[in-house]
Amino acid sequence: MKIRGDLWRTIWRSADGLAVEVIDQTCLPHTFAVRRLQTLADAAYAIKAMQVRGAPLIGAAAAYGMVLGLRERSDDAGLEEAAQALMATRPTAVNLRWAVQRMLQVLQPLPAAARIETAWREAASICDEDVALNQAIGGHGLALLSELYLKTGAPLNVLTHCNAGWLATVDWGTALAPIYRAFDAGIPLHVWVDETRPRNQGASLTAWELGQHGVPHTVIADNAGGHLMQHGEVDMVIVGADRVTAVGDVCNKIGTYLKALAAFDNRVPFYAAVPSPTIDWGIIDGVREIPIEERDANEVAWVQGRMENGDACRVNVLPAGSAAANPAFDVTPARLVTGIITERGIAAPHALRTMFPD
Amino acid sequence: MKIRGDLWRTIWRSADGLAVEVIDQTCLPHTFAVRRLQTLADAAYAIKAMQVRGAPLIGAAAAYGMVLGLRERSDDAGLEEAAQALMATRPTAVNLRWAVQRMLQVLQPLPAAARIETAWREAASICDEDVALNQAIGGHGLALLSELYLKTGAPLNVLTHCNAGWLATVDWGTALAPIYRAFDAGIPLHVWVDETRPRNQGASLTAWELGQHGVPHTVIADNAGGHLMQHGEVDMVIVGADRVTAVGDVCNKIGTYLKALAAFDNRVPFYAAVPSPTIDWGIIDGVREIPIEERDANEVAWVQGRMENGDACRVNVLPAGSAAANPAFDVTPARLVTGIITERGIAAPHALRTMFPD
Repeated sequence: MKIRGDLWRTIWRSADGLAVEVIDQTCLPHTFAVRRLQTLADAAYAIKAMQVRGAPLIGAAAAYGMVLGLRERSDDAGLEEAAQALMATRPTAVNLRWAVQRMLQVLQPLPAAARIETAWREAASICDEDVALNQAIGGHGLALLSELYLKTGAPLNVLTHCNAGWLATVDWGTALAPIYRAFDAGIPLHVWVDETRPRNQGASLTAWELGQHGVPHTVIADNAGGHLMQHGEVDMVIVGADRVTAVGDVCNKIGTYLKALAAFDNRVPFYAAVPSPTIDWGIIDGVREIPIEERDANEVAWVQGRMENGDACRVNVLPAGSAAANPAFDVTPARLVTGIITERGIAAPHALRTMFPD
Repeated sequence: MKIRGDLWRTIWRSADGLAVEVIDQTCLPHTFAVRRLQTLADAAYAIKAMQVRGAPLIGAAAAYGMVLGLRERSDDAGLEEAAQALMATRPTAVNLRWAVQRMLQVLQPLPAAARIETAWREAASICDEDVALNQAIGGHGLALLSELYLKTGAPLNVLTHCNAGWLATVDWGTALAPIYRAFDAGIPLHVWVDETRPRNQGASLTAWELGQHGVPHTVIADNAGGHLMQHGEVDMVIVGADRVTAVGDVCNKIGTYLKALAAFDNRVPFYAAVPSPTIDWGIIDGVREIPIEERDANEVAWVQGRMENGDACRVNVLPAGSAAANPAFDVTPARLVTGIITERGIAAPHALRTMFPD
């Protein structure tokens, strides 16, 4: 998508072919910086420190991380070591595991010497496929938004939580792909952007990328969505997901469940937009079975922003001596979900298996 | 309650008898500062800028604001002017209107010359009565918590939103009064403190006052409560309220409705603790009838805290060009409320009128 008029992806092989480059999302929205990842450790750090984040992009970064690992050691032990290091970075996103396993399957049968070039190609394919999946998701979501617009005739208000935009993927985004497609198609719309504490990916990433693309949007505290829904100011909620279970439970950024409850209570349709690699067919009961990452309490204590003079700064919002807890995801039970928007179309949660018989 | 071992209230007549002094809550938790209010304008500003906040304390501050107004002009026009200026500061809190009207009723019949001393006495009575009401609320809430502790035998986890502690009142607090009483009675408990964006009254005030009193607590992002309830980590939710309707709809800090939905969905009891002046007997349908204050969007954009070096600082968390919206309250429908804890006891929402036949 566009940054100041130029087309970008979030991750790409460097021009010299020796490394991978990514947009460092920890610096947004105030600074635009590109990081060069040269080693397995660089890639693992980029995922763990959330320079790259978002389930699909984590998958892509892990695939490239496998390449960087192989460049250091291309035998079976090296392959295994890279897989272990990358899998340990983030426990919740299923795409990470999916991408690492796909790379292993392709690379393990090959002789060590032949692995590196194949790995580069496979990682690039994972990226291109992600873009294609998201474009397809955007198309199905566009149909949904068009239909709603034809029905109401009024500008649409869509609420989203966290960042499931193009920054969370290789390009286009998942939850925001329908919004970009609808905006480009001339459907008048406005996005309510949950700021998404503790890391503020809504305020810092979603608002930034919508702004770069020109989509009207308003940032709100995570507390505000229920009130807006009570007063008819939200026509639809679309979120991404880090993992969707076989029956349609949606594991996504902490706080998603609260928005789903409010949407259900106010009859606002609630959709999760996910490419199929995000679906974990092995899990049924999301609330009980999905491990929820407990991240550093400092993410709650410290807020990053820009001072009056424009300098970046982080401030501690807690009293001295007060502890904080930081569960990073929650699970929205399928009963609260109107539909899952996938690359194959939109399925009611219970019909997900029917849409993916394979 | 105690600050570093000394007993304080949030508002009092100054030692020289000529002014009112308050704890400036915009400086907490990092700086403890007392402000001297000498004029009607000082009092109105203190309320509007939230140096004092919390429905009961706003009422007390408005009562003292009437006194300060009378000291400038004690005739009927002065009385009217003071009432108007104070009523215009915050539209949602019913206690503000209640306190101003009570002062008017007492003062209007008196000759101008006799008004000031009576006004000082009446404002002091409003404060003392608030303390007594909150102590009574604490007693009824203590019974509730004791009962729950006897049933479970395990340390209690109570979740609260925003600040309805002693800082929101003259002393004791509303939602926190039961917690202080239970803690003092030796019931093992722990409080989940919603940070309560955008102004972070949970992180900056509730955590601070619980810490000063020694009550175990953990600050969480506003997004986290639903997840904790899904996993059995919350035994009860207790919040305060800015206004409760005759049928038990609870208007409180934005985001309360989301926690009530999650509590209902997980069968966690949800209580609002309010002194009766917070009940607005003239309103039935809270969602439609209560005006919701839309506060400055800068409260969403700017976060106040302390830098690594300890200096106070505020940082902007939005991208340049992104707008923000800031509805300050929401309404939790009575159907989600287990009970209202008042000074007379605990009533189911629909039984509120029976408890207050007068």
